[in-house]
Amino acid sequence: MVNFSYTIVGAGAIGGFYGSRLQRAGGKVHFLLHSDYQHVSQNGLLIESPEGNFTLPEVNAYRNVGDIPPSDVVVVALKTTNNHLLPKLLPPLIKDTSFVLVMQNGLGIEEEVAKIVGAQRVMGAMCFVCSNKIGPGHIRHLDYGTITIAEYLPNYQSVGITQRMRQLAADFESAGIEVLLSEDLLISRWQKLVWNIPYNGLSVVLDATTEQLMADREMRSLIEQIMQEVALGAQSWNRLIPESFIEKMLVYTTKMKPYRTSMKIDYDLGRPLEIEAIFSNPLKIAAKAGVNLPQIRMLYQQLKFLDAQNC
Amino acid sequence: MVNFSYTIVGAGAIGGFYGSRLQRAGGKVHFLLHSDYQHVSQNGLLIESPEGNFTLPEVNAYRNVGDIPPSDVVVVALKTTNNHLLPKLLPPLIKDTSFVLVMQNGLGIEEEVAKIVGAQRVMGAMCFVCSNKIGPGHIRHLDYGTITIAEYLPNYQSVGITQRMRQLAADFESAGIEVLLSEDLLISRWQKLVWNIPYNGLSVVLDATTEQLMADREMRSLIEQIMQEVALGAQSWNRLIPESFIEKMLVYTTKMKPYRTSMKIDYDLGRPLEIEAIFSNPLKIAAKAGVNLPQIRMLYQQLKFLDAQNC
Repeated sequence: MVNFSYTIVGAGAIGGFYGSRLQRAGGKVHFLLHSDYQHVSQNGLLIESPEGNFTLPEVNAYRNVGDIPPSDVVVVALKTTNNHLLPKLLPPLIKDTSFVLVMQNGLGIEEEVAKIVGAQRVMGAMCFVCSNKIGPGHIRHLDYGTITIAEYLPNYQSVGITQRMRQLAADFESAGIEVLLSEDLLISRWQKLVWNIPYNGLSVVLDATTEQLMADREMRSLIEQIMQEVALGAQSWNRLIPESFIEKMLVYTTKMKPYRTSMKIDYDLGRPLEIEAIFSNPLKIAAKAGVNLPQIRMLYQQLKFLDAQNC
Repeated sequence: MVNFSYTIVGAGAIGGFYGSRLQRAGGKVHFLLHSDYQHVSQNGLLIESPEGNFTLPEVNAYRNVGDIPPSDVVVVALKTTNNHLLPKLLPPLIKDTSFVLVMQNGLGIEEEVAKIVGAQRVMGAMCFVCSNKIGPGHIRHLDYGTITIAEYLPNYQSVGITQRMRQLAADFESAGIEVLLSEDLLISRWQKLVWNIPYNGLSVVLDATTEQLMADREMRSLIEQIMQEVALGAQSWNRLIPESFIEKMLVYTTKMKPYRTSMKIDYDLGRPLEIEAIFSNPLKIAAKAGVNLPQIRMLYQQLKFLDAQNC
C-alpha cells in the first residue's frame, strides 16, 4: 500500500516511470507536465516494460503548480538543465510535512534545492534504471529499476537511516521497485557518477552505445581509468569507492541490453546536455578539496564544445 | 642551386610539395609513387600555392625502388602507417654517402629507420606547413612551409649542427623553403607534437576544424592544457618547452586559415590514422621516464576507438 501522496515534477523517462508505478499500486500521484500536458490529460500514460506493459488511462495531470494540492513527497525528475525553474515550482507544492526527493543525476543539486525549501526537507534519489521517453506520455522501461535513497544534510554530513526513508522505501516497494537505503548521500552520489561520467560522456563524444564502447579493448580500459578518477573524486571527500564496485559496474554494463545513454539521446535530439550537474559540479567539489581530475575535466570540455555546436 | 640529388618516398601532401619545389629550383629529384604513378608519370605534378601555382610536366616517376638510381638524400614522406614498408624500400635507394631525411610526424621513427640504414645515415625533419593532396599529382599548399632539421643519434643524444645539415638547408633555401637548424632532434620532435597532438586528435574526436576549435573558450583551454602535457612529456627527457612556445602555437593557429588537419582528412577518407607515431610513441617514451600523460592517453584511446570503427 502506498501511504504518502506524491507530486512528480517532470514526467519523463524517470518521473513518468516511477510515478506510474506508484499510481498503479494505488498511490495518490500528481503529475506536473509541460509539453505533454495536453496528451497526458486526455490519454493518460503508457508504460512498456519487461516487467509487464500497462496503461493508466486517467492521471492527475497539471500544467500549473498553483493547481496542484500540496503532497507529502515532491519528486524532482526534471532534466537538471531545467533546474533554474525550481525556485518558482517548488514552494507552492509543499506543506509543513512535505519533503522533496531529488531524483536526478549529478552532484550538488540537493544543496540548491535546500536553499529553496530548507535542508530538512531534502532527500536524494539515485536511480539505477534504463528508461526512455519515446513519445508523449509513452515510456519505455528497458532494464533495472533499483533506487537508492539518502537524506541530505549541509556539507554532506551523514545522517543515517530515518523513519521517512523507511516509509518512502515501503511505498516504492509496494510499487514493485527495489529500494536501497543509504546512510551517506555523498558516497551514493559519487557511486552513481562512476557509471554516469564515463558512459554518458563517451557515448556523446564517440557517438556510441554502451555495447560498442564495451566491445573495444582500449575503450574499456579508458572507461575503467575514468571510473578510477571518479573514485579519486569521492576520496577527496573521504568517501571510499572500492575497486570491486568499479568492477561490478563494468560487468553490469557488459550484461546490459545495448543502451543509448540519456545524454546521448539528449544530444541526438538537439537538447542541452546535463553537463553542469554530472561533470562540472563533481569537478568543482573535488577541486574544493584540492584534487584535480584531468580525464573528467577533458571529457567535460569536449562535451561543452559539442553542446555549444549542437544547441 | 640544389646540390644533392633526392629521392622522395611518398609524393603526397608533404613529399610532393617539397620535392616539387626542389625540382623547380633545378634539383635532381626522383619520386617513388604508388597509387599516383600512372597519372604522375604521364602528367607530372601540379602545385597550387599562395606563393604561386606551378606545374612540373615531367618528373622522374618510379613505381619500383629497384629502378631508382641511389641518391644523396632519401626523403621519407610516407604516412607513418606505411612505415612497415621501409625495410624493403630503403636499402636499394642508398649509396655509401646517402642519408635518410625522416619527414614525418610523431616520435620514435628515426630509431626504426636507423635499424635499417644505420644511425649515422638518419636525420629528422619537422615540417610546419599546411598542405593537402587534393587529387593524383595535385597538391594544394595553403600556408607556412618552414622545415626544422636535426641529426639523429641513438637515445636522442644531441649532435649539434653538421656540415650536411648546412648543405641540406642551402638546397631547400634555393627552393624558397625556410630551414631552421636544430641541435637537438628530441626537443624539435616534442615541439612539433605541441601542435600535432591537440589539433590532430581533437579535430577527429570532435569533428572540427582548427578554426572551430579555437573559437570555443573551453576548447582553447583544453588545447592549452594538452600542450602543457606535451611539454611535460618533453621535460621527462630533460627538454624544456617554455610557456612562450605554447603561446606562440596558439597564436599561429588562431591566425592560420581554417584548416582540416591531416589526421581529420585521413579519418574522413576512411584511412588508418597515424596514432602510433603521434600518440602512442610519445606516451611510451614519457612512460619510460616514469611520466604519465593522462589527457594525451585519453585522446589516444578515443582515437583508437574511432579508428577501429572507421577502417
